[in-house]
Amino acid sequence: MKKLFMELTSPSSNCGKIYEIEEILESVKSPFQQIDFYKTKDYGILFTLDNIVQLTEKEEFFYHEMIVHPAIQTHKNPQKVLIIGGGDCGTLTHVIKYPEIKHIDMVEIDKLVVELSKKYLPHLTKSLEDKRVTLYIEDGFKFLKNKKNEYDIIIIDSTDPDTIAKELFSGNFYKEVYDALADSGISVYQSEPPFHPLYDEMQINVYKILKSLYNHVNFVFFPEPMYPTGYFTTLIASKKYNPLEVNKEKIREKINNFNLNYYNEEIHFASLAIPEFMKKKLNIN
Amino acid sequence: MKKLFMELTSPSSNCGKIYEIEEILESVKSPFQQIDFYKTKDYGILFTLDNIVQLTEKEEFFYHEMIVHPAIQTHKNPQKVLIIGGGDCGTLTHVIKYPEIKHIDMVEIDKLVVELSKKYLPHLTKSLEDKRVTLYIEDGFKFLKNKKNEYDIIIIDSTDPDTIAKELFSGNFYKEVYDALADSGISVYQSEPPFHPLYDEMQINVYKILKSLYNHVNFVFFPEPMYPTGYFTTLIASKKYNPLEVNKEKIREKINNFNLNYYNEEIHFASLAIPEFMKKKLNIN
Repeated sequence: MKKLFMELTSPSSNCGKIYEIEEILESVKSPFQQIDFYKTKDYGILFTLDNIVQLTEKEEFFYHEMIVHPAIQTHKNPQKVLIIGGGDCGTLTHVIKYPEIKHIDMVEIDKLVVELSKKYLPHLTKSLEDKRVTLYIEDGFKFLKNKKNEYDIIIIDSTDPDTIAKELFSGNFYKEVYDALADSGISVYQSEPPFHPLYDEMQINVYKILKSLYNHVNFVFFPEPMYPTGYFTTLIASKKYNPLEVNKEKIREKINNFNLNYYNEEIHFASLAIPEFMKKKLNIN
Repeated sequence: MKKLFMELTSPSSNCGKIYEIEEILESVKSPFQQIDFYKTKDYGILFTLDNIVQLTEKEEFFYHEMIVHPAIQTHKNPQKVLIIGGGDCGTLTHVIKYPEIKHIDMVEIDKLVVELSKKYLPHLTKSLEDKRVTLYIEDGFKFLKNKKNEYDIIIIDSTDPDTIAKELFSGNFYKEVYDALADSGISVYQSEPPFHPLYDEMQINVYKILKSLYNHVNFVFFPEPMYPTGYFTTLIASKKYNPLEVNKEKIREKINNFNLNYYNEEIHFASLAIPEFMKKKLNIN
């Protein structure tokens, strides 16, 4: 008989996704959340927090490429990067690809997520061995309070708004991130599926808050089969540089040896195109 | 207790999608296939053929907009259109939006699909009342054999390659479509998810066949939450016009009163950007 992992995440938990499981590798409760690692039939490792899919090995590249590259490529001279969350190290794996980045701080609240990722996702956590990386096990919100005018890029690789990451979706948090950024800084946020009633209000609010702080605010749209609806977004907020004014040839040059699976110089601009339903939702002409 | 409709469609049927069902409205076997209509909790009507999702009322716009508008917008003067399949009339609903189109033939093999769609999806089948439309209940492959140099646009809105639509994925069929097109004609095909091992070989083959026949062949990429992985493609094959050389202002002008939910002049070009994994798969530089 098939063992199925099911995630039901729609407005009334009535629509979702199924993975067939071969083995439960780990099922533990940390002080913060329930952590599970599974071996799936065709999708490699499946990692969940509180029974919500964080990643499958075969599908994680969409999300991790798209939360990293469009923002970094938009910045002309990124040297210091902060990642909040992202304990599986999928995001870090892409940040360390840039030789021009001199220093990377990563702040993960849950030590056990990092430790179990080291065991089951070593191809991602080996990025922690990069000499430019410092890992802090602490609350990202608290970590930020001492930081002013410091980072070129801040990446918020959080779980959903109704989890322990709740504070990371509050108005105060966006202001703290803004203040921690240098003058030409860029922040980027996981911002959930664009076509999913559960997140409409959050997206409208966050978009408004970011527009009140930054010169350029753009949703980035991309496929992500492992997340609800298979269609996902990040939000890029930039003090100075416009993501739509990046040079295509320069992107190609920079990513040429990265061996990416989704992002490239055409996808950069494609991901910034705003669908009609989203224009209506955000009240963009 | 929740009643769930589950579709398991991955390589070894190990990954899929769930919809919560409130009511089974219709469950009948036609001479061609099993036809079911359900009332879902949040997604309106769910229509399946042989237990494969054809559409949900709330999500069908992605697919139906994207199988119609990029192709029609690419043609400078489309007057005669043929739709093969598409008995639910979602595709037809978008084709009739263009006043410059003078004549539309639609060929659906299964009369019962049209009749039941009239009952449960009247907002789509009302497009059949348009005076420019002629509906033929017959085999699309046979219908094509008498047609030479006749249509400006041919849309293949078929079910999957392993169903009754099998013949529509064969080499002969693509030649018949080519011959039925006028000199500047454009054909467009539903071509399954781009990131799904079940369809890799089919996509590589079809792409090669179309490249041997047409001047311009482009995959169109778009989200579609109701289909496996939530990420889908159509293929546009064009004898003369290049989909990448369409005028943005003209697109905006034409669609301005269409009240679309996904497609617009930015999405037109965004959907033609080729992700890295697809370049590797198709051996594009």
